[in-house]
Amino acid sequence: MIKSKLIYEGKAKKLYEVEGHPELIYQEFKNSLTAFNGVKKSDLDEKGALNRDISSLILRYLQKKGINNHFVQDVGTDGMITRKVQIIPLEVVVRNIVAGSLAKKFNMTEGAQLEKPIVDLHHKDDATGDPFINDEQAVWVLKAATLQEVTRLKEIALTINGYLKIFFEKAGLKLVDFKLEFGKLPNGEIILADEISPDTCRLWDLQTGEKRDKDRFRRDLGDVVENYKLVLEAIRQAGGAT
Amino acid sequence: MIKSKLIYEGKAKKLYEVEGHPELIYQEFKNSLTAFNGVKKSDLDEKGALNRDISSLILRYLQKKGINNHFVQDVGTDGMITRKVQIIPLEVVVRNIVAGSLAKKFNMTEGAQLEKPIVDLHHKDDATGDPFINDEQAVWVLKAATLQEVTRLKEIALTINGYLKIFFEKAGLKLVDFKLEFGKLPNGEIILADEISPDTCRLWDLQTGEKRDKDRFRRDLGDVVENYKLVLEAIRQAGGAT
Repeated sequence: MIKSKLIYEGKAKKLYEVEGHPELIYQEFKNSLTAFNGVKKSDLDEKGALNRDISSLILRYLQKKGINNHFVQDVGTDGMITRKVQIIPLEVVVRNIVAGSLAKKFNMTEGAQLEKPIVDLHHKDDATGDPFINDEQAVWVLKAATLQEVTRLKEIALTINGYLKIFFEKAGLKLVDFKLEFGKLPNGEIILADEISPDTCRLWDLQTGEKRDKDRFRRDLGDVVENYKLVLEAIRQAGGAT
Repeated sequence: MIKSKLIYEGKAKKLYEVEGHPELIYQEFKNSLTAFNGVKKSDLDEKGALNRDISSLILRYLQKKGINNHFVQDVGTDGMITRKVQIIPLEVVVRNIVAGSLAKKFNMTEGAQLEKPIVDLHHKDDATGDPFINDEQAVWVLKAATLQEVTRLKEIALTINGYLKIFFEKAGLKLVDFKLEFGKLPNGEIILADEISPDTCRLWDLQTGEKRDKDRFRRDLGDVVENYKLVLEAIRQAGGAT
């Protein structure tokens, strides 16, 4: 698998075409870490490779559970071959515990268990700062998906949440909330895309409550990469995709 | 109907008990006008009386259409007797045309017709600035209502929209968007409450596009009360509640 033309550079990944495989994408996980819609930026050695490894383990685990996703294979230390999809411009956020923007919005204490997991939608759009939206806005204002598709995305997201909660619990981590992105294959099928990593999940140590995710960067808690490493080791030891 | 103890003072209304009628409320429509969660404030002569008259016409019209609401009768120039309800802490916003916060959020031009009317929910809570929320947050985080109730509120809101679009069109006005509040009677029945006025609706002149609502105040366009008067005259001439 040889990467050719760069087709997209985002905040966390570079996407390349794959020579001779128009149906595939070569994703390179970058070391750069951004927060607050790109206002806060940093470059952390090994971050890209760690997120590739973590994402890879999780996407393979989900495939075994029957959750179709874009993962094909790893390449090198920070590359991943994925199926080429047309990304649906929605960020699908699943929340088990009150934290982050939800806590801030309602002036609630972080850590409160929600009675039921909830799903929030955001418009994936850097220009307007990925605003929080509702289903009607997604469908009738932004035309990002049909109502049936939005309902389906939320269903898949909650199913994934069920699997990931168990997955991380085995590794001694509490899955607080996480963000998913989905894409469409040329045949119209919707599959899970993007990464699942400490950049896109809130993960708290089950015993100590310590944060092992991007909040260490957002909130200047230090030891970002060290904590990402702890996550990788923990999910590897817990059996990961096996 | 004699007002007794003041039980609540909001930004736009004072609510009193009614002597000998524990099931009723005396609502006094204030002249004060606020915007941006109370940051911008003014006092405009006659505004309270105009909004009382406009609300009264609309609530009576809706009752004739079978939309249960809290209206009982007018008193004096700026008072209204209503049924006492427990307000559901949700602001239910119906939008026919892109304007205001929706236009700003998506960086869209005001005035675009939506393919379908949409309903937005906000948490009615001054302390956090009435934040925009989705159904799941209303139900599982805020516990403001059950999922069935939220679905019902949105249905009633869209039905009201159908009636009000026609009502205002007859008066030469385009109903761009509006905010509703609902309350529960002691028997659990949900009915429409609050006011419906140029403070809570965006109304544009069908011919000229001129704004005849609170945006004249928010955006310093002047002639606020004069435009509220035009609205009252127009809906009276169009037949209003008759």
